[in-house]
Amino acid sequence: MKIQETLDFVKRLFLAIGCTNEDATTVADVLVAAETRGIPSHGLIRIMDYIGMWEKGKINNKPKIKVVYETPSTAVIDGDRCFGMIAAKKSMEIAIEKAKIAGTGWVATRNSNHFGIAGYYAMMALEHDMTGISMTHANPLIAPTFSISRMLGTNPLAVAIPTNKQPAFVADFATTPIARGKLAIKEKQGKKVPFGLVQDAEGNPSDNPAIITKGGAILPLGSDYEHGSHKGYCMTAIVDLFSSMFSGASFGPFVPPQIPYLNAKENAPGIGMGHFFGAIRCDAFQPTENFKNYMDLWIETFRSSIPSDGNEKVLIPGDPERLFEEKTKLGGINIIPEIEKDLKEIAKKYKVDF
Amino acid sequence: MKIQETLDFVKRLFLAIGCTNEDATTVADVLVAAETRGIPSHGLIRIMDYIGMWEKGKINNKPKIKVVYETPSTAVIDGDRCFGMIAAKKSMEIAIEKAKIAGTGWVATRNSNHFGIAGYYAMMALEHDMTGISMTHANPLIAPTFSISRMLGTNPLAVAIPTNKQPAFVADFATTPIARGKLAIKEKQGKKVPFGLVQDAEGNPSDNPAIITKGGAILPLGSDYEHGSHKGYCMTAIVDLFSSMFSGASFGPFVPPQIPYLNAKENAPGIGMGHFFGAIRCDAFQPTENFKNYMDLWIETFRSSIPSDGNEKVLIPGDPERLFEEKTKLGGINIIPEIEKDLKEIAKKYKVDF
Repeated sequence: MKIQETLDFVKRLFLAIGCTNEDATTVADVLVAAETRGIPSHGLIRIMDYIGMWEKGKINNKPKIKVVYETPSTAVIDGDRCFGMIAAKKSMEIAIEKAKIAGTGWVATRNSNHFGIAGYYAMMALEHDMTGISMTHANPLIAPTFSISRMLGTNPLAVAIPTNKQPAFVADFATTPIARGKLAIKEKQGKKVPFGLVQDAEGNPSDNPAIITKGGAILPLGSDYEHGSHKGYCMTAIVDLFSSMFSGASFGPFVPPQIPYLNAKENAPGIGMGHFFGAIRCDAFQPTENFKNYMDLWIETFRSSIPSDGNEKVLIPGDPERLFEEKTKLGGINIIPEIEKDLKEIAKKYKVDF
Repeated sequence: MKIQETLDFVKRLFLAIGCTNEDATTVADVLVAAETRGIPSHGLIRIMDYIGMWEKGKINNKPKIKVVYETPSTAVIDGDRCFGMIAAKKSMEIAIEKAKIAGTGWVATRNSNHFGIAGYYAMMALEHDMTGISMTHANPLIAPTFSISRMLGTNPLAVAIPTNKQPAFVADFATTPIARGKLAIKEKQGKKVPFGLVQDAEGNPSDNPAIITKGGAILPLGSDYEHGSHKGYCMTAIVDLFSSMFSGASFGPFVPPQIPYLNAKENAPGIGMGHFFGAIRCDAFQPTENFKNYMDLWIETFRSSIPSDGNEKVLIPGDPERLFEEKTKLGGINIIPEIEKDLKEIAKKYKVDF
């Protein structure tokens, strides 16, 4: 499907369920960006869950997003139970506006929902000659080192840094060895996963991608203590803390699930899902041209790393997504039949052309 | 050795080589904090290298540390080739001062050297009811995913978050599966390391902790691509970028080595080693008491995670170091004979009582 057609379809769908033109455009933009950047686990596959959550009254399609607190360099945003992309985009816009005046801008967001790919918001900073930071927690599937309790989400972190001639540095990664969506894809393909990614309900090693539906858990990055999983646990915990303590969102095991048929824990502390965003003006530290030229040199240097046997080249964070994007712009988005079937069904339900 | 005696000895030594009283106190404080917190790889063992670097003219014992650029929420510090702790402490003090006014403060530091444990500086924020962030790059020993080139250091990141009744959250970790100092200890003990921590010069798996002295490299957190090493590579790269792009320090493969007999690469871009610091006032986002009570709840919740078989309990970042500190306060610092011998020698050389 062509990119523009996909954008138009998703927008029509979210208009049909009552979103404003602006909000429907934002949701479509972020979901389709995931597809064009080669992260389908955060793209069209999520539409059924998003709309399902709205149908169950868990997402508000007419949110009034508010700045509930602010200082010159910080703000707290209440997302009013919106589709996460809407609060996230607004929050990053505010971070960028704060940075224009204070040098840096930092926004914590609560009462939000799944916001798609973290990289989208971090990259918004680039055109303003700013470094962008974006992170979110997610529903709990990860057990801390030495534990069988699912306390943390796959908690992605994105950092985008502007450049001059080179493409921007864009790191956008789950802070865990594998994202939930990627396990689901392996499961649908009937494949096993390598040991070191998940454990069973008793904490034993497992190669079953479906084990997390049977009380198992995803491991922190590093897999086990000997290989530094306590560092992965720290990273994922830090993203959870930044997504919840600053904004007042729920945290860790209380982060509300993002699928229609699972309810948030009763008496969960905090308010909904949370995110955290940052924008840092290059010229809050260095003249912008110097900064961007120095980034070019960093990228050129790292691109010249010697590949190990059997590997063609060393990648710079952002390379795989950019290369995928170039391909998608020519060939369009490849929607797998199973998802196409779902989308056609929901299009029919809301009387929208697919 | 008692903590106070160790502090006094280290201070005498750095006074003897010409540091000011204030600077010698700072160096002693940070080095001894590493010992009391159970991170001896960053403690007294480093003294020989620090003084050796000064003897070779690579470290300036009478630095004039300058703020070279600033905005309301940011600053760039030039360390004048000082012992890293001196620039780092000064930088964090400035970040805290900035945060008092702007809500957050961010300081990038260049022309510095090895600064000891990252956690020391992050923790400085706690008594001001602020979250502290501290990071540094280090000399290059890590190969990016798919590469044999040593491009990045073990680049530690520390985040300290204030609490009310619970002990503070203090994560302080190399963003790689193992720190350089810990490999050195295994090597001295004649032990192997598990596969998944280092590779040989051709990129093959290795269990030899000395392999990095033979052209090998440390792997990113995650060990291999299948287990998410590209995410570890991203994390370590982000710490390098924050330590160099904002301050104008050297970067990645050009970070100056921190041992006396190795020289910096000729024509290296940037100025010396770099660090990055942040301070975030609790009440830039939430009333301080709410924030700290919510942190207590986070810690209590995570402490109640169910341990897997054979593990006693789940740890909160900062627990191991705090427990070690309590032990050291009673029993003193355990200096291994080999290091004691080195220290006695250098004490004699500079006519200082051990």
